[in-house]
Amino acid sequence: MREALEQLEATIARRRSADPETSYVARLLGKGRPKIAQKVGEEAVEIVIAAISGDKKGVVMEGADLLFHLGVLLAEMGLSFDDIGAELERRDGISGIAEKAARSKG
Amino acid sequence: MREALEQLEATIARRRSADPETSYVARLLGKGRPKIAQKVGEEAVEIVIAAISGDKKGVVMEGADLLFHLGVLLAEMGLSFDDIGAELERRDGISGIAEKAARSKG
Amino acid sequence: MREALEQLEATIARRRSADPETSYVARLLGKGRPKIAQKVGEEAVEIVIAAISGDKKGVVMEGADLLFHLGVLLAEMGLSFDDIGAELERRDGISGIAEKAARSKG
Amino acid sequence: MREALEQLEATIARRRSADPETSYVARLLGKGRPKIAQKVGEEAVEIVIAAISGDKKGVVMEGADLLFHLGVLLAEMGLSFDDIGAELERRDGISGIAEKAARSKG
Repeated sequence: MREALEQLEATIARRRSADPETSYVARLLGKGRPKIAQKVGEEAVEIVIAAISGDKKGVVMEGADLLFHLGVLLAEMGLSFDDIGAELERRDGISGIAEKAARSKG
Repeated sequence: MREALEQLEATIARRRSADPETSYVARLLGKGRPKIAQKVGEEAVEIVIAAISGDKKGVVMEGADLLFHLGVLLAEMGLSFDDIGAELERRDGISGIAEKAARSKG
Repeated sequence: MREALEQLEATIARRRSADPETSYVARLLGKGRPKIAQKVGEEAVEIVIAAISGDKKGVVMEGADLLFHLGVLLAEMGLSFDDIGAELERRDGISGIAEKAARSKG
Repeated sequence: MREALEQLEATIARRRSADPETSYVARLLGKGRPKIAQKVGEEAVEIVIAAISGDKKGVVMEGADLLFHLGVLLAEMGLSFDDIGAELERRDGISGIAEKAARSKG
């Protein structure tokens, strides 16, 4: 995973301005944020199905689909995986129940 | 993001055997795969809502929640982010429409 | 089902103005549309899990949860199950592949 | 809505044995439960997006899609909307906080 997400982001950045006829990334970005967010939700549903079915390969494939579409969503919003990484590192100092409390939502 | 996912996985691995009273990871793993998968689905719904609401901070927070719970699901299934990373790298050689075709599903 | 949805809507309408301390409907409406929509998404994830697990009772329970929260969302948006019913009846005249074409989305 | 769901179920029952070439219902049932459950999850994601976008017509359209696919899932599992209706009516006797407690999940 070390460099996979960086490569993924570089690929997405490069394809943003590509021809939508030949680039899935350009075409998806052209459809706008609701469609990109929809794909993130749909891929998560597919991971859930693969997980409950005990389909390890499916979890890996849908996990890649999920991270890919999450990367496109982040790019569309001017964000990056590093923003999420920073938040994960920030939380890593918070342990156990404290972490849960910080994560629990109204 | 470089090391955030590795740290995340190390933290999850360390807490697997912790006391469920004090560790959210241990408690969640104790509830079993359906509950963990459910959290992955729920966090994706929250990212969708944050994205459509134009809430950048929310996307980062829910993105961290999503990756955290995905990490727990991977651990529960004997998988790792590296498995997804390998799949992402494999795909990176496949470009444009070809990539889309490889990803399209019945 | 004949009258269950009408009863459900009547119950939701009656509780809208109830005390949030004692009414879940009033409390949920007070949290606003994103929270209500989130519940709709979460209940759908739970139906998916129950279905894949072959848990018939779970599908019924989560199906009731889903319709309940969908009813609250419709009420919050000034809509009703009748609006969906009218759309379903409109489609019922359209058959087979034609129906699919009408439903397929960009 | 009074008769829309009954009509929907009758239509689904009639098309179950139709030619998958011409019937979306027959084709979807032929793909099996995971694919049907996936559609339920996906339509819920689309309702969430329509709701947050303030798109009333979208909520009605996606609501119809959701109930349609839920009907197919129920049929595939030997269940009906009446099973959900009975559960909703059972709950209707339970009010306020008590109802919430009955619905809250571990």
